[in-house]
Amino acid sequence: MVGEGDTTATTTDDAEWIPGTRRRVLDTAVSLFGRYSVAGTSLQMIADELGLTKAAIYYHFRTRDQLLLALMEPIFTEIAGVVAVAEQQPDAASRADAMLTGYADIVTRHRTLAAVTTFDPSVRSVLVSHPQWSGVIDRQMALLADIEPEPSDGVTASVALTGVAGGASTASHRIDDETLRAQLIAAGRRILGLPHPSSRS
Amino acid sequence: MVGEGDTTATTTDDAEWIPGTRRRVLDTAVSLFGRYSVAGTSLQMIADELGLTKAAIYYHFRTRDQLLLALMEPIFTEIAGVVAVAEQQPDAASRADAMLTGYADIVTRHRTLAAVTTFDPSVRSVLVSHPQWSGVIDRQMALLADIEPEPSDGVTASVALTGVAGGASTASHRIDDETLRAQLIAAGRRILGLPHPSSRS
Repeated sequence: MVGEGDTTATTTDDAEWIPGTRRRVLDTAVSLFGRYSVAGTSLQMIADELGLTKAAIYYHFRTRDQLLLALMEPIFTEIAGVVAVAEQQPDAASRADAMLTGYADIVTRHRTLAAVTTFDPSVRSVLVSHPQWSGVIDRQMALLADIEPEPSDGVTASVALTGVAGGASTASHRIDDETLRAQLIAAGRRILGLPHPSSRS
Repeated sequence: MVGEGDTTATTTDDAEWIPGTRRRVLDTAVSLFGRYSVAGTSLQMIADELGLTKAAIYYHFRTRDQLLLALMEPIFTEIAGVVAVAEQQPDAASRADAMLTGYADIVTRHRTLAAVTTFDPSVRSVLVSHPQWSGVIDRQMALLADIEPEPSDGVTASVALTGVAGGASTASHRIDDETLRAQLIAAGRRILGLPHPSSRS
Protein backbone atom coordinates (compact mmCIF):
# COMPACT_ATOMS: atom_id res chain seq x y z
CA MET A 1 0.00 0.00 0.00
CA VAL A 2 2.62 2.50 1.15
CA GLY A 3 5.88 1.92 -0.70
CA GLU A 4 6.96 -1.42 -1.96
CA GLY A 5 7.00 -4.05 0.77
CA ASP A 6 8.29 -7.62 0.52
CA THR A 7 5.19 -9.69 1.25
CA THR A 8 6.76 -13.14 1.72
CA ALA A 9 5.60 -14.67 5.02
CA THR A 10 8.28 -15.60 7.56
CA THR A 11 7.93 -17.57 10.78
CA THR A 12 11.34 -17.31 12.45
CA ASP A 13 11.78 -15.76 15.90
CA ASP A 14 14.69 -13.80 14.48
CA ALA A 15 12.43 -12.01 12.05
CA GLU A 16 13.31 -8.67 13.66
CA TRP A 17 16.70 -8.96 11.98
CA ILE A 18 15.37 -9.54 8.48
CA PRO A 19 15.76 -6.35 6.43
CA GLY A 20 12.46 -4.86 5.39
CA THR A 21 10.46 -6.26 8.31
CA ARG A 22 9.62 -2.80 9.64
CA ARG A 23 8.29 -1.78 6.20
CA ARG A 24 6.24 -5.00 5.94
CA VAL A 25 4.75 -4.42 9.40
CA LEU A 26 3.74 -0.90 8.37
CA ASP A 27 2.25 -2.06 5.04
CA THR A 28 0.28 -4.83 6.74
CA ALA A 29 -0.93 -2.43 9.43
CA VAL A 30 -2.31 -0.03 6.79
CA SER A 31 -4.15 -2.85 5.09
CA LEU A 32 -5.65 -4.19 8.37
CA PHE A 33 -6.47 -0.67 9.65
CA GLY A 34 -8.38 -0.10 6.41
CA ARG A 35 -10.23 -3.42 6.74
CA TYR A 36 -10.94 -3.44 10.51
CA SER A 37 -10.25 0.17 11.65
CA VAL A 38 -7.33 1.07 13.91
CA ALA A 39 -9.16 0.10 17.11
CA GLY A 40 -10.22 -3.21 15.52
CA THR A 41 -6.62 -4.22 14.69
CA SER A 42 -4.29 -5.71 17.32
CA LEU A 43 -0.51 -6.12 17.09
CA GLN A 44 -1.27 -9.88 17.30
CA MET A 45 -3.40 -9.67 14.13
CA ILE A 46 -0.54 -7.94 12.32
CA ALA A 47 1.89 -10.62 13.53
CA ASP A 48 -0.50 -13.40 12.41
CA GLU A 49 -1.01 -11.82 9.00
CA LEU A 50 2.76 -11.70 8.43
CA GLY A 51 3.48 -15.10 9.99
CA LEU A 52 5.73 -13.35 12.54
CA THR A 53 5.85 -13.68 16.32
CA LYS A 54 4.48 -10.83 18.41
CA ALA A 55 8.06 -10.33 19.67
CA ALA A 56 9.15 -9.52 16.15
CA ILE A 57 6.49 -6.78 15.96
CA TYR A 58 7.45 -5.46 19.45
CA TYR A 59 11.02 -5.12 18.27
CA HIS A 60 9.82 -2.36 15.93
CA PHE A 61 6.71 -0.97 17.67
CA ARG A 62 5.88 -1.24 21.37
CA THR A 63 2.22 -0.20 20.92
CA ARG A 64 -0.38 0.20 18.22
CA ASP A 65 -0.30 3.97 18.80
CA GLN A 66 3.44 4.02 18.08
CA LEU A 67 2.74 2.15 14.84
CA LEU A 68 -0.06 4.55 13.92
CA LEU A 69 2.28 7.48 14.58
CA ALA A 70 4.93 5.97 12.31
CA LEU A 71 2.31 5.71 9.54
CA MET A 72 0.89 9.21 10.07
CA GLU A 73 4.22 11.05 10.22
CA PRO A 74 5.18 10.72 6.53
CA ILE A 75 1.69 11.47 5.22
CA PHE A 76 1.31 14.58 7.41
CA THR A 77 4.79 15.66 6.34
CA GLU A 78 3.70 15.31 2.70
CA ILE A 79 0.51 17.30 3.35
CA ALA A 80 2.51 19.99 5.20
CA GLY A 81 4.80 20.26 2.16
CA VAL A 82 1.83 20.77 -0.17
CA VAL A 83 0.29 23.35 2.20
CA ALA A 84 3.56 25.33 2.36
CA VAL A 85 3.92 25.40 -1.43
CA ALA A 86 0.22 26.23 -1.96
CA GLU A 87 0.35 29.15 0.49
CA GLN A 88 3.05 30.79 -1.64
CA GLN A 89 0.86 31.01 -4.74
CA PRO A 90 -0.06 34.59 -5.76
CA ASP A 91 -3.89 34.43 -5.59
CA ALA A 92 -6.64 32.54 -3.73
CA ALA A 93 -7.67 30.38 -6.72
CA SER A 94 -4.08 29.29 -7.43
CA ARG A 95 -3.55 28.55 -3.73
CA ALA A 96 -6.70 26.39 -3.60
CA ASP A 97 -5.78 24.65 -6.86
CA ALA A 98 -2.26 23.86 -5.65
CA MET A 99 -3.68 22.46 -2.40
CA LEU A 100 -6.29 20.37 -4.22
CA THR A 101 -3.91 18.90 -6.82
CA GLY A 102 -1.21 18.17 -4.24
CA TYR A 103 -3.72 16.49 -1.95
CA ALA A 104 -5.21 14.43 -4.80
CA ASP A 105 -1.69 13.28 -5.61
CA ILE A 106 -1.05 12.16 -2.01
CA VAL A 107 -4.35 10.26 -1.57
CA THR A 108 -3.91 8.58 -4.96
CA ARG A 109 -0.52 7.19 -3.98
CA HIS A 110 -1.73 6.19 -0.48
CA ARG A 111 -5.30 5.07 -1.19
CA THR A 112 -5.90 3.03 1.98
CA LEU A 113 -3.77 5.13 4.31
CA ALA A 114 -5.63 8.25 3.11
CA ALA A 115 -8.95 6.71 4.21
CA VAL A 116 -7.52 5.81 7.61
CA THR A 117 -6.01 9.30 8.02
CA THR A 118 -9.20 11.09 7.01
CA PHE A 119 -11.93 8.91 8.51
CA ASP A 120 -10.61 6.73 11.37
CA PRO A 121 -11.51 8.27 14.75
CA SER A 122 -8.25 6.90 16.27
CA VAL A 123 -6.31 9.37 14.15
CA ARG A 124 -8.09 12.26 15.87
CA SER A 125 -6.51 11.39 19.22
CA VAL A 126 -3.11 11.30 17.54
CA LEU A 127 -3.83 14.76 16.09
CA VAL A 128 -4.80 16.12 19.51
CA SER A 129 -1.41 15.16 20.90
CA HIS A 130 0.37 16.62 17.84
CA PRO A 131 -0.78 20.26 17.54
CA GLN A 132 1.69 20.88 14.70
CA TRP A 133 -0.29 18.38 12.57
CA SER A 134 -3.73 19.71 13.45
CA GLY A 135 -2.33 23.13 12.50
CA VAL A 136 -1.52 21.70 9.06
CA ILE A 137 -5.11 20.40 8.68
CA ASP A 138 -6.47 23.84 9.60
CA ARG A 139 -4.25 25.55 7.00
CA GLN A 140 -5.28 22.94 4.40
CA MET A 141 -8.96 23.65 5.09
CA ALA A 142 -8.41 27.43 5.04
CA LEU A 143 -6.76 27.27 1.59
CA LEU A 144 -9.88 25.61 0.15
CA ALA A 145 -12.52 27.46 2.24
CA ASP A 146 -11.02 30.73 1.02
CA ILE A 147 -12.51 30.30 -2.48
CA GLU A 148 -15.86 28.67 -1.70
CA PRO A 149 -18.21 29.54 -4.57
CA GLU A 150 -20.80 30.62 -1.99
CA PRO A 151 -20.26 31.23 1.76
CA SER A 152 -20.73 27.86 3.48
CA ASP A 153 -18.77 27.87 6.75
CA GLY A 154 -16.22 25.45 5.35
CA VAL A 155 -18.81 22.86 4.29
CA THR A 156 -17.77 23.05 0.63
CA ALA A 157 -14.08 22.73 1.51
CA SER A 158 -14.88 19.75 3.72
CA VAL A 159 -16.93 18.06 0.94
CA ALA A 160 -13.92 18.52 -1.35
CA LEU A 161 -11.37 17.09 1.09
CA THR A 162 -13.45 14.15 2.32
CA GLY A 163 -14.77 13.44 -1.18
CA VAL A 164 -11.30 13.36 -2.72
CA ALA A 165 -10.02 11.09 0.08
CA GLY A 166 -13.16 8.93 -0.07
CA GLY A 167 -13.05 8.71 -3.86
CA ALA A 168 -9.42 7.56 -3.73
CA SER A 169 -10.00 4.96 -1.05
CA THR A 170 -13.03 3.37 -2.72
CA ALA A 171 -11.63 3.46 -6.27
CA SER A 172 -11.34 0.17 -8.11
CA HIS A 173 -7.82 -1.24 -8.22
CA ARG A 174 -8.22 -1.38 -12.01
CA ILE A 175 -7.92 2.41 -12.14
CA ASP A 176 -4.27 3.43 -12.47
CA ASP A 177 -2.84 6.29 -10.40
CA GLU A 178 -2.63 8.80 -13.24
CA THR A 179 -6.29 8.34 -14.24
CA LEU A 180 -7.54 8.39 -10.65
CA ARG A 181 -5.57 11.51 -9.81
CA ALA A 182 -6.97 13.35 -12.85
CA GLN A 183 -10.55 12.32 -11.98
CA LEU A 184 -10.20 13.41 -8.35
CA ILE A 185 -8.76 16.78 -9.39
CA ALA A 186 -11.56 17.32 -11.93
CA ALA A 187 -14.24 16.52 -9.32
CA GLY A 188 -12.51 18.67 -6.68
CA ARG A 189 -12.27 21.64 -9.07
CA ARG A 190 -15.98 21.39 -9.83
CA ILE A 191 -16.83 21.33 -6.09
CA LEU A 192 -14.73 24.42 -5.47
CA GLY A 193 -15.73 26.22 -8.66
CA LEU A 194 -12.12 26.26 -9.90
CA PRO A 195 -11.62 26.40 -13.67
CA HIS A 196 -9.74 23.69 -15.55
CA PRO A 197 -6.23 25.01 -16.29
CA SER A 198 -6.95 24.88 -20.05
CA SER A 199 -9.90 27.25 -19.57
CA ARG A 200 -7.92 29.72 -17.42
CA SER A 201 -7.35 33.24 -18.62
CA MET B 1 -28.16 12.30 17.47
CA VAL B 2 -30.80 9.96 16.10
CA GLY B 3 -34.26 10.90 17.33
CA GLU B 4 -34.93 12.52 20.63
CA GLY B 5 -33.52 10.55 23.57
CA ASP B 6 -33.93 11.24 27.26
CA THR B 7 -30.38 11.90 28.42
CA THR B 8 -30.83 11.80 32.20
CA ALA B 9 -28.28 9.44 33.78
CA THR B 10 -29.65 6.54 35.86
CA THR B 11 -27.83 4.05 38.03
CA THR B 12 -30.49 1.57 39.06
CA ASP B 13 -30.24 -2.14 38.19
CA ASP B 14 -33.83 -1.90 37.00
CA ALA B 15 -32.87 0.55 34.30
CA GLU B 16 -34.01 -1.92 31.63
CA TRP B 17 -37.57 -1.12 32.65
CA ILE B 18 -37.27 2.62 32.30
CA PRO B 19 -39.00 3.74 29.10
CA GLY B 20 -36.64 5.22 26.55
CA THR B 21 -33.58 3.28 27.72
CA ARG B 22 -33.25 1.45 24.38
CA ARG B 23 -33.31 4.80 22.53
CA ARG B 24 -30.72 6.27 24.91
CA VAL B 25 -28.43 3.26 24.43
CA LEU B 26 -28.68 3.69 20.63
CA ASP B 27 -28.02 7.45 20.81
CA THR B 28 -25.01 6.97 23.08
CA ALA B 29 -23.69 4.19 20.84
CA VAL B 30 -23.79 6.50 17.78
CA SER B 31 -21.91 9.18 19.66
CA LEU B 32 -19.22 6.76 20.94
CA PHE B 33 -18.94 4.97 17.56
CA GLY B 34 -18.29 8.36 15.98
CA ARG B 35 -15.69 9.26 18.60
CA TYR B 36 -13.88 5.90 18.96
CA SER B 37 -15.06 3.83 15.92
CA VAL B 38 -17.31 0.77 16.28
CA ALA B 39 -14.41 -1.57 17.11
CA GLY B 40 -13.11 0.92 19.69
CA THR B 41 -16.41 1.04 21.60
CA SER B 42 -17.41 -1.69 24.09
CA LEU B 43 -20.85 -2.30 25.58
CA GLN B 44 -19.18 -1.48 28.92
CA MET B 45 -18.20 1.99 27.62
CA ILE B 46 -21.82 2.59 26.59
CA ALA B 47 -23.04 1.45 30.02
CA ASP B 48 -20.50 3.72 31.77
CA GLU B 49 -21.44 6.72 29.62
CA LEU B 50 -25.12 6.28 30.57
CA GLY B 51 -24.48 5.40 34.22
CA LEU B 52 -26.21 2.05 33.61
CA THR B 53 -25.11 -1.48 34.50
CA LYS B 54 -23.92 -3.73 31.71
CA ALA B 55 -26.96 -5.93 32.49
CA ALA B 56 -29.23 -3.06 31.51
CA ILE B 57 -27.50 -2.85 28.13
CA TYR B 58 -27.64 -6.64 27.67
CA TYR B 59 -31.37 -6.50 28.25
CA HIS B 60 -31.66 -4.63 24.94
CA PHE B 61 -28.61 -5.78 22.95
CA ARG B 62 -26.66 -9.01 23.50
CA THR B 63 -23.70 -7.91 21.37
CA ARG B 64 -22.19 -4.80 19.80
CA ASP B 65 -23.02 -6.22 16.37
CA GLN B 66 -26.69 -6.47 17.32
CA LEU B 67 -26.56 -2.84 18.41
CA LEU B 68 -24.84 -1.81 15.16
CA LEU B 69 -27.53 -3.66 13.18
CA ALA B 70 -30.28 -1.85 15.08
CA LEU B 71 -28.62 1.47 14.15
CA MET B 72 -28.02 0.55 10.49
CA GLU B 73 -31.49 -0.82 9.78
CA PRO B 74 -33.41 2.49 9.85
CA ILE B 75 -30.75 4.42 7.90
CA PHE B 76 -30.52 1.75 5.17
CA THR B 77 -34.32 1.66 5.04
CA GLU B 78 -34.32 5.44 4.51
CA ILE B 79 -31.66 5.17 1.77
CA ALA B 80 -33.61 2.33 0.11
CA GLY B 81 -36.70 4.55 0.09
CA VAL B 82 -34.78 7.39 -1.60
CA VAL B 83 -33.29 4.95 -4.15
CA ALA B 84 -36.74 3.55 -5.03
CA VAL B 85 -38.23 7.03 -5.54
CA ALA B 86 -35.17 8.23 -7.50
CA GLU B 87 -35.29 5.24 -9.85
CA GLN B 88 -38.80 6.23 -10.89
CA GLN B 89 -37.77 9.63 -12.23
CA PRO B 90 -38.10 10.01 -16.01
CA ASP B 91 -34.48 10.83 -16.98
CA ALA B 92 -30.93 10.19 -15.75
CA ALA B 93 -30.34 13.75 -14.48
CA SER B 94 -33.60 13.77 -12.47
CA ARG B 95 -32.79 10.32 -11.07
CA ALA B 96 -29.33 11.46 -9.95
CA ASP B 97 -30.71 14.70 -8.52
CA ALA B 98 -33.41 12.88 -6.53
CA MET B 99 -30.77 10.47 -5.18
CA LEU B 100 -28.40 13.30 -4.26
CA THR B 101 -31.01 15.48 -2.54
CA GLY B 102 -32.56 12.54 -0.66
CA TYR B 103 -29.14 11.38 0.51
CA ALA B 104 -28.11 14.90 1.59
CA ASP B 105 -31.33 15.05 3.60
CA ILE B 106 -30.56 11.76 5.38
CA VAL B 107 -26.94 12.58 6.26
CA THR B 108 -27.93 16.05 7.47
CA ARG B 109 -30.44 14.59 9.93
CA HIS B 110 -28.01 11.80 11.02
CA ARG B 111 -24.66 13.62 10.92
CA THR B 112 -22.67 11.25 13.12
CA LEU B 113 -24.44 8.04 12.11
CA ALA B 114 -23.85 8.93 8.44
CA ALA B 115 -20.09 9.07 9.05
CA VAL B 116 -20.17 5.70 10.83
CA THR B 117 -22.29 4.17 8.05
CA THR B 118 -20.08 5.50 5.26
CA PHE B 119 -16.60 5.25 6.71
CA ASP B 120 -16.43 2.72 9.58
CA PRO B 121 -14.97 -0.59 8.35
CA SER B 122 -17.16 -2.52 10.84
CA VAL B 123 -20.21 -1.55 8.78
CA ARG B 124 -18.76 -3.37 5.76
CA SER B 125 -18.99 -6.73 7.55
CA VAL B 126 -22.62 -5.97 8.42
CA LEU B 127 -23.23 -5.20 4.73
CA VAL B 128 -21.65 -8.48 3.63
CA SER B 129 -24.11 -10.43 5.77
CA HIS B 130 -27.03 -8.31 4.48
CA PRO B 131 -26.97 -8.56 0.68
CA GLN B 132 -30.24 -6.62 0.41
CA TRP B 133 -28.44 -3.57 1.87
CA SER B 134 -25.32 -3.87 -0.29
CA GLY B 135 -27.75 -4.06 -3.23
CA VAL B 136 -29.15 -0.69 -2.15
CA ILE B 137 -25.65 0.84 -2.05
CA ASP B 138 -24.95 -0.47 -5.57
CA ARG B 139 -28.18 1.06 -6.90
CA GLN B 140 -27.40 4.33 -5.13
CA MET B 141 -23.96 4.42 -6.78
CA ALA B 142 -25.42 3.51 -10.19
CA LEU B 143 -27.93 6.38 -10.06
CA LEU B 144 -25.07 8.88 -9.63
CA ALA B 145 -22.47 7.16 -11.85
CA ASP B 146 -25.02 7.22 -14.69
CA ILE B 147 -24.59 10.97 -15.24
CA GLU B 148 -20.87 11.43 -14.57
CA PRO B 149 -19.78 14.52 -16.52
CA GLU B 150 -16.89 12.47 -17.94
CA PRO B 151 -16.43 8.67 -17.80
CA SER B 152 -14.65 7.93 -14.52
CA ASP B 153 -15.47 4.34 -13.46
CA GLY B 154 -17.65 5.59 -10.63
CA VAL B 155 -14.93 7.80 -9.10
CA THR B 156 -17.04 10.96 -9.51
CA ALA B 157 -20.10 9.27 -7.97
CA SER B 158 -17.97 8.09 -5.08
CA VAL B 159 -16.49 11.56 -4.51
CA ALA B 160 -20.07 12.89 -4.37
CA LEU B 161 -21.34 10.27 -1.89
CA THR B 162 -18.33 10.29 0.43
CA GLY B 163 -17.98 14.08 0.17
CA VAL B 164 -21.62 14.69 1.09
CA ALA B 165 -21.40 12.24 4.02
CA GLY B 166 -18.01 13.64 5.08
CA GLY B 167 -19.21 17.23 4.76
CA ALA B 168 -22.23 16.47 6.96
CA SER B 169 -20.24 14.67 9.63
CA THR B 170 -17.57 17.36 9.96
CA ALA B 171 -19.95 20.32 9.79
CA SER B 172 -19.96 22.74 12.71
CA HIS B 173 -22.90 22.28 15.08
CA ARG B 174 -23.61 25.98 14.55
CA ILE B 175 -24.86 25.19 11.04
CA ASP B 176 -28.58 24.37 11.13
CA ASP B 177 -29.97 21.44 9.16
CA GLU B 178 -31.62 23.49 6.42
CA THR B 179 -28.45 25.45 5.63
CA LEU B 180 -26.24 22.37 5.74
CA ARG B 181 -28.56 20.37 3.49
CA ALA B 182 -28.63 23.19 0.91
CA GLN B 183 -24.83 23.48 0.93
CA LEU B 184 -24.32 19.72 0.54
CA ILE B 185 -26.79 19.58 -2.37
CA ALA B 186 -25.11 22.56 -4.07
CA ALA B 187 -21.65 20.94 -3.74
CA GLY B 188 -22.99 17.54 -4.87
CA ARG B 189 -24.64 19.05 -7.95
CA ARG B 190 -21.41 20.76 -8.94
CA ILE B 191 -19.47 17.46 -8.59
CA LEU B 192 -21.99 15.66 -10.79
CA GLY B 193 -22.45 18.50 -13.25
CA LEU B 194 -26.17 18.76 -12.37
CA PRO B 195 -27.78 22.17 -12.92
CA HIS B 196 -29.41 24.07 -10.08
CA PRO B 197 -33.19 23.62 -10.38
CA SER B 198 -33.60 27.36 -11.03
CA SER B 199 -31.32 27.10 -14.08
CA ARG B 200 -33.14 24.05 -15.48
CA SER B 201 -34.93 24.25 -18.79
